[in-house]
Amino acid sequence: MAKPIEEGDYVRLWASNKKGDSFLIRLAKGGSLGSRIGAVRHDDVLAAGFGGEVLSTKGERFFVVRPTVSDFCRKIHRVTQVVYPKDAGVLLTSLDIRPGASVLECGSGSGGMTVFLAHFVGPGGRVYSYDVREDHQKVAMDNCRRWGVDDRVLFRVADVEEAGFQERDLDALFLDVRCPWKIVEPAVSALAPGGRLAVLVPTVNQVEMVLESLREAGCADLVVTETSQRNWKTNPKRLRPEDSMVAHTGFMVFASTLKAGVVPDEYW
Amino acid sequence: MAKPIEEGDYVRLWASNKKGDSFLIRLAKGGSLGSRIGAVRHDDVLAAGFGGEVLSTKGERFFVVRPTVSDFCRKIHRVTQVVYPKDAGVLLTSLDIRPGASVLECGSGSGGMTVFLAHFVGPGGRVYSYDVREDHQKVAMDNCRRWGVDDRVLFRVADVEEAGFQERDLDALFLDVRCPWKIVEPAVSALAPGGRLAVLVPTVNQVEMVLESLREAGCADLVVTETSQRNWKTNPKRLRPEDSMVAHTGFMVFASTLKAGVVPDEYW
Amino acid sequence: MAKPIEEGDYVRLWASNKKGDSFLIRLAKGGSLGSRIGAVRHDDVLAAGFGGEVLSTKGERFFVVRPTVSDFCRKIHRVTQVVYPKDAGVLLTSLDIRPGASVLECGSGSGGMTVFLAHFVGPGGRVYSYDVREDHQKVAMDNCRRWGVDDRVLFRVADVEEAGFQERDLDALFLDVRCPWKIVEPAVSALAPGGRLAVLVPTVNQVEMVLESLREAGCADLVVTETSQRNWKTNPKRLRPEDSMVAHTGFMVFASTLKAGVVPDEYW
Amino acid sequence: MAKPIEEGDYVRLWASNKKGDSFLIRLAKGGSLGSRIGAVRHDDVLAAGFGGEVLSTKGERFFVVRPTVSDFCRKIHRVTQVVYPKDAGVLLTSLDIRPGASVLECGSGSGGMTVFLAHFVGPGGRVYSYDVREDHQKVAMDNCRRWGVDDRVLFRVADVEEAGFQERDLDALFLDVRCPWKIVEPAVSALAPGGRLAVLVPTVNQVEMVLESLREAGCADLVVTETSQRNWKTNPKRLRPEDSMVAHTGFMVFASTLKAGVVPDEYW
Repeated sequence: MAKPIEEGDYVRLWASNKKGDSFLIRLAKGGSLGSRIGAVRHDDVLAAGFGGEVLSTKGERFFVVRPTVSDFCRKIHRVTQVVYPKDAGVLLTSLDIRPGASVLECGSGSGGMTVFLAHFVGPGGRVYSYDVREDHQKVAMDNCRRWGVDDRVLFRVADVEEAGFQERDLDALFLDVRCPWKIVEPAVSALAPGGRLAVLVPTVNQVEMVLESLREAGCADLVVTETSQRNWKTNPKRLRPEDSMVAHTGFMVFASTLKAGVVPDEYW
Repeated sequence: MAKPIEEGDYVRLWASNKKGDSFLIRLAKGGSLGSRIGAVRHDDVLAAGFGGEVLSTKGERFFVVRPTVSDFCRKIHRVTQVVYPKDAGVLLTSLDIRPGASVLECGSGSGGMTVFLAHFVGPGGRVYSYDVREDHQKVAMDNCRRWGVDDRVLFRVADVEEAGFQERDLDALFLDVRCPWKIVEPAVSALAPGGRLAVLVPTVNQVEMVLESLREAGCADLVVTETSQRNWKTNPKRLRPEDSMVAHTGFMVFASTLKAGVVPDEYW
Repeated sequence: MAKPIEEGDYVRLWASNKKGDSFLIRLAKGGSLGSRIGAVRHDDVLAAGFGGEVLSTKGERFFVVRPTVSDFCRKIHRVTQVVYPKDAGVLLTSLDIRPGASVLECGSGSGGMTVFLAHFVGPGGRVYSYDVREDHQKVAMDNCRRWGVDDRVLFRVADVEEAGFQERDLDALFLDVRCPWKIVEPAVSALAPGGRLAVLVPTVNQVEMVLESLREAGCADLVVTETSQRNWKTNPKRLRPEDSMVAHTGFMVFASTLKAGVVPDEYW
Repeated sequence: MAKPIEEGDYVRLWASNKKGDSFLIRLAKGGSLGSRIGAVRHDDVLAAGFGGEVLSTKGERFFVVRPTVSDFCRKIHRVTQVVYPKDAGVLLTSLDIRPGASVLECGSGSGGMTVFLAHFVGPGGRVYSYDVREDHQKVAMDNCRRWGVDDRVLFRVADVEEAGFQERDLDALFLDVRCPWKIVEPAVSALAPGGRLAVLVPTVNQVEMVLESLREAGCADLVVTETSQRNWKTNPKRLRPEDSMVAHTGFMVFASTLKAGVVPDEYW
């Protein structure tokens, strides 16, 4: 069942103050978290255990909770924009990720989505993560190692526009690059026929290009979607949404691939 | 890698027409799908394979694609409201479901969320699914069996307000019942300290009650959230959102549990 | 103050049933409204007065309420898509319509926005409404006459791409045509320098074209915006949003015009 | 037509820089605007005229545009939360404000909505604005005077829960107070039968109370609604929504009043 706390674990320290301060730390004996609201000794956290309480040097109460993969991805070291949980969730369920699946992503970025994918395919699954920039990929690698899912990720530095993908017959494929329309052809070749392809892009101009290229590549069942998430304040006597929210992260385009030579009609 | 088509598989037949007709079928030799736009023989689908094409008796072209867990849950036999993919995604990432996890849900309903949970914890995981109504739970069971994930689900018919939950030290717990505030106490007892609890309710009156009960039970890090998803039409020359969308499914409340006796301050 | 009921008035008949049936009628002595839930005699409505109650022949209770300009525009005879109240409101406040203003709209369509504009500029104001199609404009004219605001509207059938606008020095100008970018130049010429221009288009491809043309025409302070409105069910014991909503009507682009020769820098 | 620039006018100075800096000033001979990006002399603005250009002392280009009532209300001196244009628009069209109408608002707050109402009822209309706090109302008065609409506003300092409203037979009534349910009865009495009532509240708990009180007061045709507005970045080559947006301002509740003794059925 749920494992007890130990050195090397990530924990989240949550303070029940107005600001909702919350810190993600990796426990090391003798370690210490410094913060605006006081320092916390890692040894105290190990002693308190999950669900326990520690006091900072400034007397702030902190509570030790188990971090989720969303908590981790929200706080990772990043060199690029990372995928939001609201989008990651729809990608996971619409790409049909599952334990044991073989998934390809291009590019690795800071590894936010790599972590999500590797987390959900599990130790029996496989994530192939491509990026043209080795420096970015090192950050992604490091984040996977921290979350303990690097064993199932195969990182590849490659110029896909030039060389294509090495894999074939994959379950799912996710494109998160600036010009995804340039690599739709290799993406379709890497997927099993009837398989699922997803693309994430921030602008509508890119959506237009992606749709054109997916049509040309003979893809089926195109879907364009965007998600939003609105948090509410949690006082039950004055229940109301938060004042501001994220207005936009990106547009997601989904498609199913077909066998070579099978091309649907234009249908809009 | 991706497995080839065979009898017993679910496939999705997608027609590239204006209406975007799409059918989820389970392949049986000699079987046939009847539809407004013609009949399709299952044997033709088996012969075409994933990514292939079949013709209906009315000459409509159908394309054979691999269904996702979202496709399946959207089309299951239902006796109750089912959880939407947009919400399931946030629940999965914020409850921190992963291959091998032990998760409890109450109630089973039509099994939409049971299928999602069982799909993502994988064969090494465990889902405990409670419902007070045996007739509903039979539908849920049947849906799990169809999607091939019933091996990891343990269904229990029980009046939880009376008897509580049998499990302890769970990774995650999800409440989807009319009066969740009445079973927050047993829910906290069933979770490992520091573990994740989620509640889904349709009305704000219920959100108020849930927040009160979570506070009383000493839960930490309360979050209330709602998601929305807007699909776009897919003609790249006239790119625009669809005319209508789902305005509301439910509010989700998340919390982390603490050890008995550890109680955060009131913080709003 | 508020005027009493009389023949020729529009009234809204609202039935307090689950479907929220609501009918907009113009009162005529001896007239009758036929509906699924029974017929209502206009004479009964005149006798009941505003705020009163009448019974249909099927025993349904109807309540007589004063229609707003939004009620009227929602129910007008239409040959084209009409502007929604949520958008009309933002157009009115961002174009700075006011009693006595001189406003131009192109095209008239079914007259939904013509009615809104004419309603808010009042009897001392002026609306110039252009359309290339005389048949559409007749519908718009008729709708303005029905709402009693035709005295301040000057309809013009013209091909603006060819002939431009006749007016100069206007307070505000609203474009609701398929290719607004083709008439941005005449629009700028018709407005007083520093005046307000608004464009409504359904697709992002059109937004792109409009933005390019406004930039080329030397417009300032470009704003692109979209609005949404979500209604809630009204049972206070089970307060929750409606199940579905309008996902999209159109994108609005606003700009201020400058004197000829004054051209802002590219600023994004 | 559009009037030329003169001393005493409000103008908006817009800089075509990345930050979209924009300043609302009232022109006074010899005056000067100081800003982070340089000072601007009012005399230069008067000389440039609407649609013209002025240079700040730091060489920043400013463009002189006509401010809308939304621009003004966004920048007014405020002591309370002000009504947003997205909400003001729906209030105006659903309360059926028009030139010449008689409208009551309670409370005045900083006068944001007072200005909107007074602007749209015009010099022939009348706004009765109640507030229990004289100090707030002075701010509201001052803002009305600045926008030149104070001639049609009658401010009243009163405890409405005690004394009710003095007016009768009004066209529309708007409640923007903390406990609107306590003054629904006087509000209904002040309106003409069949007239329009609107309430703005930030929390769902308040919405519940308002709905209960409107039902008890025999109001008809209850509508609860919320609006949202999403701005887009304006680069046509990279068209996409802004990163963040306002998530919540308030919920609006609308109703029509009926004659004393006429009470609709419970209909949800």
